[in-house]
Amino acid sequence: MPGSTFGTALRLTTAGESHGPANVAILDGVPPGLELSEEDLQADLDRRRPGQSKITTQRKESDRAQILSGVFEGRTTGTAIAILVPNEDQRSRDYGNLRETYRPGHADYTYDAKYGRRDHRGGGRSSARETVVRVAAGAIAKKLLSELWGVRIVGYVKSVADVDAEIPAPEEVTLEQVESNIVRCPDPKAAERMIERIEEARRDLDSLGGVAELVASGVPPGWGEPVFDKLKSDFGRGLFSLPAVLGVEYGSGFGAARLRGSENNDVFEPAEEAVSKTGVPTAAGAAGRPPVRTATNRHGGMLGGISSGMPIVLRCAVKPTSSLAREQRTVQRDGAATTVATKGRHDPCLLPRFIPMGEAMVALVLADHGLRQLTVEAAAQRLMEKATGEE
Amino acid sequence: MPGSTFGTALRLTTAGESHGPANVAILDGVPPGLELSEEDLQADLDRRRPGQSKITTQRKESDRAQILSGVFEGRTTGTAIAILVPNEDQRSRDYGNLRETYRPGHADYTYDAKYGRRDHRGGGRSSARETVVRVAAGAIAKKLLSELWGVRIVGYVKSVADVDAEIPAPEEVTLEQVESNIVRCPDPKAAERMIERIEEARRDLDSLGGVAELVASGVPPGWGEPVFDKLKSDFGRGLFSLPAVLGVEYGSGFGAARLRGSENNDVFEPAEEAVSKTGVPTAAGAAGRPPVRTATNRHGGMLGGISSGMPIVLRCAVKPTSSLAREQRTVQRDGAATTVATKGRHDPCLLPRFIPMGEAMVALVLADHGLRQLTVEAAAQRLMEKATGEE
Amino acid sequence: MPGSTFGTALRLTTAGESHGPANVAILDGVPPGLELSEEDLQADLDRRRPGQSKITTQRKESDRAQILSGVFEGRTTGTAIAILVPNEDQRSRDYGNLRETYRPGHADYTYDAKYGRRDHRGGGRSSARETVVRVAAGAIAKKLLSELWGVRIVGYVKSVADVDAEIPAPEEVTLEQVESNIVRCPDPKAAERMIERIEEARRDLDSLGGVAELVASGVPPGWGEPVFDKLKSDFGRGLFSLPAVLGVEYGSGFGAARLRGSENNDVFEPAEEAVSKTGVPTAAGAAGRPPVRTATNRHGGMLGGISSGMPIVLRCAVKPTSSLAREQRTVQRDGAATTVATKGRHDPCLLPRFIPMGEAMVALVLADHGLRQLTVEAAAQRLMEKATGEE
Amino acid sequence: MPGSTFGTALRLTTAGESHGPANVAILDGVPPGLELSEEDLQADLDRRRPGQSKITTQRKESDRAQILSGVFEGRTTGTAIAILVPNEDQRSRDYGNLRETYRPGHADYTYDAKYGRRDHRGGGRSSARETVVRVAAGAIAKKLLSELWGVRIVGYVKSVADVDAEIPAPEEVTLEQVESNIVRCPDPKAAERMIERIEEARRDLDSLGGVAELVASGVPPGWGEPVFDKLKSDFGRGLFSLPAVLGVEYGSGFGAARLRGSENNDVFEPAEEAVSKTGVPTAAGAAGRPPVRTATNRHGGMLGGISSGMPIVLRCAVKPTSSLAREQRTVQRDGAATTVATKGRHDPCLLPRFIPMGEAMVALVLADHGLRQLTVEAAAQRLMEKATGEE
Repeated sequence: MPGSTFGTALRLTTAGESHGPANVAILDGVPPGLELSEEDLQADLDRRRPGQSKITTQRKESDRAQILSGVFEGRTTGTAIAILVPNEDQRSRDYGNLRETYRPGHADYTYDAKYGRRDHRGGGRSSARETVVRVAAGAIAKKLLSELWGVRIVGYVKSVADVDAEIPAPEEVTLEQVESNIVRCPDPKAAERMIERIEEARRDLDSLGGVAELVASGVPPGWGEPVFDKLKSDFGRGLFSLPAVLGVEYGSGFGAARLRGSENNDVFEPAEEAVSKTGVPTAAGAAGRPPVRTATNRHGGMLGGISSGMPIVLRCAVKPTSSLAREQRTVQRDGAATTVATKGRHDPCLLPRFIPMGEAMVALVLADHGLRQLTVEAAAQRLMEKATGEE
Repeated sequence: MPGSTFGTALRLTTAGESHGPANVAILDGVPPGLELSEEDLQADLDRRRPGQSKITTQRKESDRAQILSGVFEGRTTGTAIAILVPNEDQRSRDYGNLRETYRPGHADYTYDAKYGRRDHRGGGRSSARETVVRVAAGAIAKKLLSELWGVRIVGYVKSVADVDAEIPAPEEVTLEQVESNIVRCPDPKAAERMIERIEEARRDLDSLGGVAELVASGVPPGWGEPVFDKLKSDFGRGLFSLPAVLGVEYGSGFGAARLRGSENNDVFEPAEEAVSKTGVPTAAGAAGRPPVRTATNRHGGMLGGISSGMPIVLRCAVKPTSSLAREQRTVQRDGAATTVATKGRHDPCLLPRFIPMGEAMVALVLADHGLRQLTVEAAAQRLMEKATGEE
Repeated sequence: MPGSTFGTALRLTTAGESHGPANVAILDGVPPGLELSEEDLQADLDRRRPGQSKITTQRKESDRAQILSGVFEGRTTGTAIAILVPNEDQRSRDYGNLRETYRPGHADYTYDAKYGRRDHRGGGRSSARETVVRVAAGAIAKKLLSELWGVRIVGYVKSVADVDAEIPAPEEVTLEQVESNIVRCPDPKAAERMIERIEEARRDLDSLGGVAELVASGVPPGWGEPVFDKLKSDFGRGLFSLPAVLGVEYGSGFGAARLRGSENNDVFEPAEEAVSKTGVPTAAGAAGRPPVRTATNRHGGMLGGISSGMPIVLRCAVKPTSSLAREQRTVQRDGAATTVATKGRHDPCLLPRFIPMGEAMVALVLADHGLRQLTVEAAAQRLMEKATGEE
Repeated sequence: MPGSTFGTALRLTTAGESHGPANVAILDGVPPGLELSEEDLQADLDRRRPGQSKITTQRKESDRAQILSGVFEGRTTGTAIAILVPNEDQRSRDYGNLRETYRPGHADYTYDAKYGRRDHRGGGRSSARETVVRVAAGAIAKKLLSELWGVRIVGYVKSVADVDAEIPAPEEVTLEQVESNIVRCPDPKAAERMIERIEEARRDLDSLGGVAELVASGVPPGWGEPVFDKLKSDFGRGLFSLPAVLGVEYGSGFGAARLRGSENNDVFEPAEEAVSKTGVPTAAGAAGRPPVRTATNRHGGMLGGISSGMPIVLRCAVKPTSSLAREQRTVQRDGAATTVATKGRHDPCLLPRFIPMGEAMVALVLADHGLRQLTVEAAAQRLMEKATGEE
């Protein structure tokens, strides 16, 4: 039972390795009629692209996505969309020494244990290279979310090492603010210090971790399916499926563990209008019930795992890059002790390039659940009309 | 696209509400030949049962699980196992006032937004009552893990509010230590203070959150499927699907965000024998490669989302109970402001009863992936034998 | 990877054996607001019930379904519906001799080969007894289809042995006509002869096969998903999953193999109004395109595996009951040759009781796809409105 | 909920249209260590290729498959395999007149009803062109089946129009016999008449249907999962998912409907050795039970939907090509009556090129279930050893 497929109503399947000819995605379930071109995918691909700044890896990839199906005369047809991103800069000679050696912190050993063999070049399938097609597919999910429900997704770096950004209102952060600096942190002072720390770490032949915050605004209430496909469950699955993520939380997160209920609960209050002004009637709206909001958002936009209409706020702990240019102790396939230093190109801190990856997974989860909820609402509305004889 | 099904090779489907006649689970994929009786489910059900101590809810349920299929003459047949747990203490009159009122922190509002209607009695499907059949199914998964691979799962309370337990070696904590006190914390001094804090909070008509740590020992290397069904992804999905979980992390978790790579990486070293002494040859083992271990376990037993053979260590942030006996501001279905105080029975701190729930989800994820890996290993071994002409 | 789950948007999971305490189903994905009680399930359960006439098995079961969840105050809540049907007449002593003997035509041997063990009583999980909860779930699917889209499903016996019914217009056959005789054939003359043949076969300690025809009227055009979840694929999977089905065809079926294209094609012609008068706008309807029909219906209501709006007409070949009261040669588990005669109760011809089973699977497939298409249509309509600025 | 994914343990996802740049498949779940190159896919692609003989369409495609991932140094790695087949001969100008016209027997109208728009060029996604990547993936499944279990799959044309082949022993037909003539019928006399009939039909601007027979030998007993993923269910789904298939049957099929039980049952008899000499111990074999066979094979190799070890024999009814060079009445998108004659290239009879498609689906279903059963057997064996203390 393999694991390269994600989602239910919007289903992404991927294939590809770090140093094979290409990475490929099939995105199935995009509704018909969405205006779409390869250009729509490029902005996020450029944000994920290696070599984009002095604090990222210097691998050279143009990362131009080709759409091979599912789009006709500029709009989606409703059928499966195939996306291909060629690998260009496959300097696999860099990896010759890794054929027999397990890099600490990488999946070299675990892939070998699992399969008994592996493509050792750049980590093969375990490389973050595979996220390139996730980001492409995520860009489609974002566009769909925007067109259908006015949902907006923005991610940014919340902390690097011990430098914390101050973000008073997560839902107000704009893409422009995020993209205004190379570390993708909307707090300019913190950004400066983060960049310094990253350069410092690189000089030390070391690497840094950090926290990414991902925010979705405009999500209507009612998304998520009890009891296993809760919105928070699928965010958990999607975000943990990204390389280097060691922790995921939303709302007050681990901080809630130290609070009392009276401190952590968000009280409800009447709302002038729906918090997410999407014009989409929820099942509750269709039933003639007024909108509701919470006074605070410690619940991070989800209650019982279902969206509340308040902004969804998630955070990921991203570990420091495992590849280090310094020598580390390790073992070889034959069991002999050795040392390894990564000569290849790698990021001294994954966070800046993680942001589009995190956003992509959030978008894929939300678009999936938005489409799923369409069925519930359309059916519920018809049954309600039947019941009340309005038809 | 509904969401009451979990798992691939071992697939759990549940149904049931807090105040309906019963909760039901179908567990499909348990291999034939496992010795199994209703007694095997009872120990964990008793650990989850309401009314078990002074610091839990006083709802009275005997929580006796009935096995309705899939077991014949004391052993599983390989076909689907149906489990039924009747609800006995359905004092739904306690909930009459909640028909029109949204409790803060609960899913009352979001279910209404989703479905346009809801069973308001005790939260209906959103109640933690539904976890009773997860715990029953988890007990089967645990037994399977133990029989097939010698895997052992233990969970415990790591912190309540500001009280932190000291657990020097997570993988050495025993069930006996955990069960030696009513708060399920293996550090007896911390346990005492936790209990005090909980009683204090209850007196204040308030509630407390905390952190649960879940440890699986003996998991062979190689479990987990790239790239979306990584072991960590499925733990993320499974644990976030539990009520009240606001955060999940493993290994160094959010702490890794503040470390350097040289501090966070675990170096590999030769191992005398496989860390998990299961006698199960992994694909690597079958290929004649020697066992490997890491000197430390900041990676929490997973690299690239695949088990490394080292103990798997996960943590969940559990929010303070949302139900409070004190008045909280909220709104009604008709939009009018009101207040609500939970008169019903509820836990002042969810942690002690959360432990068996968390263990159950860890067991369900692991048993699923253990079975999935059987296919990979059996096929890989046959192909290897073919290739080397050993057959 | 077990196999007791069926469907995507409407997902049925079942468990239970012939002689265990009960059969259980969980039906997940029924939208909120459908009026539903246990009575709604009973009519079809009575049509499937053993002992209903002189030409069926005499096993005694009241087959009363209990709904354990998902319904509140007479309407569905949108959450999973659990259904339990107790087994009452478990005369398992009848089966003592089958512990070691493989009955010809049954799954005794193949279950043993698969699992290495089996519940031999009445076939265990392989018994047609498990269809009792499919029929209960199918009754819910039928009601949903009727309420949401006006779809009507009727099945009947088309042939028994060499007796063929004449059915000039399949879509006009009514439930009343079908239920007017115990063999469920709407051609009264053929029915009479079928009953004679069945009684004759029983006197000969033998059994008869036949063909069931299943018709769904009012299905809107556009249901079915390329390329693997075509409507015809899912009918194929669903109907072949029923015991004793050796063949499935639709429209001109195997007859088409002998025709020329000019004889088999159905020409399109303008339609006054949509063939299926459901009031449901399809994506095409929403795009302002006029309805279309075909002059004939050799395509059986599906083109490219997607519904055309014409009646869906399917046929199943049902083999003669494998259980025979006469001696048949066979072998024992230990490999020794022996003979076996079924002393237990069994149907001399499965067809009359097969009809509600076949209808249930057709209903489950259609309700699943109807719900799936709601998402496509709701999303397509919104995107179309955006594109044309109608909003 | 889209439908471009097939299988559980071996999971195929496809994308692509008749006249887009390429068709793409991702095959996930192929175990590590299978020797594989693009050459392995070519033989079957050549059998499916247009323009291969005078009785097929003259569209020119070289149909060279590129493997983009999942293979390293000549062997599979265990990770997802991406396959790309470019479309070369996209004479879409042939289809300009079809933009507004619904071809009888095609999916033009139903796609329009479903999606509100469509890629009209050559049928877009509904074209049989999409099967090119199924055939490529099927070739991998065949190789896997052969290497792991010695399973052999052969298909052939059983009838065209009124010409029936005589095939005394389906399981003895060889690929060489099948490929000895352009119609792929192993009965040379029948083959000659079939070719005449097809040429005749083409001269008449007409087309012919027929029946394909698909045989799998060497399948061990025990494959298939109760109760919905029976082997016969998945064959039903897989074969009906192919274009033009109007009927599927196995064993005595629709013929069984006219037989008595005593005529249709296959009696069991002791076997010298397992019918399928695969050397693979089934669960039964592991339990020390002797092999069993049936004296006849009217059950077509499946009992209770689970393989019996006897040859699996399936038949598909394939309708006459819907595209005709003669004028046919139809309607336009705007509802106006018109006529259409297919000017493009098409097959006068689909059967010769259908054979590799049918074989591919049979192979994909079997490889999926073979891998699924590996888990059952490996787990059952370990539990049995535990129970009997053999370990």
